[in-house]
Amino acid sequence: MFTKRKSIKQIEEGKDLAPKFDKLGLIPVITTDFKNGNVLMHGYMNRQALKKTIETGEMYYWSRSRKIIWHKGKVSGFIQKVKEIRIDDDQDAVWVKVDTKASCHVGYKSCFYRSVPIKKKNKIKMVFKEKRKVFNAKKVYKGLSNPTKI
Amino acid sequence: MFTKRKSIKQIEEGKDLAPKFDKLGLIPVITTDFKNGNVLMHGYMNRQALKKTIETGEMYYWSRSRKIIWHKGKVSGFIQKVKEIRIDDDQDAVWVKVDTKASCHVGYKSCFYRSVPIKKKNKIKMVFKEKRKVFNAKKVYKGLSNPTKI
Repeated sequence: MFTKRKSIKQIEEGKDLAPKFDKLGLIPVITTDFKNGNVLMHGYMNRQALKKTIETGEMYYWSRSRKIIWHKGKVSGFIQKVKEIRIDDDQDAVWVKVDTKASCHVGYKSCFYRSVPIKKKNKIKMVFKEKRKVFNAKKVYKGLSNPTKI
Repeated sequence: MFTKRKSIKQIEEGKDLAPKFDKLGLIPVITTDFKNGNVLMHGYMNRQALKKTIETGEMYYWSRSRKIIWHKGKVSGFIQKVKEIRIDDDQDAVWVKVDTKASCHVGYKSCFYRSVPIKKKNKIKMVFKEKRKVFNAKKVYKGLSNPTKI
């Protein structure tokens, strides 16, 4: 499925899929809502996760905290259906447009629910852009540990 | 400008900006076109680049290949004007909506100019989604080396 990286021309201007995985074997993934372009989450895939995502049309990530392939939505029910996959110029980042109900383990639709004011020097107070949660995280993830690390 | 990370509640549900930089001191950044939501590029910022971006309203990245703070557009003229900055639930990824003419060193508006067909097992041939380049990269970056690594 993946082609060996041979030349800059092939990587940048070709039609072969020749992704670059980093030293940990991962590639960063940007997941957006196919309806409105909002960024839902930023994650990572390894070779197997990218392969399974392309083959099945559902999102598989590599969970860095749990060190496993992670079929997004398997626990919550909020599967991410792939609408389109894109790759960038040097093929070291992936963008996927998906259809899903919610993506954020805190309960919001998007993980990016807070806005950072600009042209400030200090005392930044962020603004919540999603007014309400779309699911109850405590119920949905009952008994599972929070993936956020301090 | 940045607050110390103290608790999961503060990080996920608070208004303090408490970004998490990785072992290399970097945070991944998703840059989108504020007009249509298209992802333009995937990059990285260190503390100083994020600080300068917030203060000035123009995008500064950390160049991993050149190992310098990089004021995007300084060479090409295609400055990225910040429209909005968002941060994710665990504050280890940044999404910025920008206004810019072009973002990709190959000459396209977006770095993500190729689409990967899904539900395929092998022999993937990508499809070009941007039909033409918006600038002549050879002229604009004359004498500079290509950042793409094989």
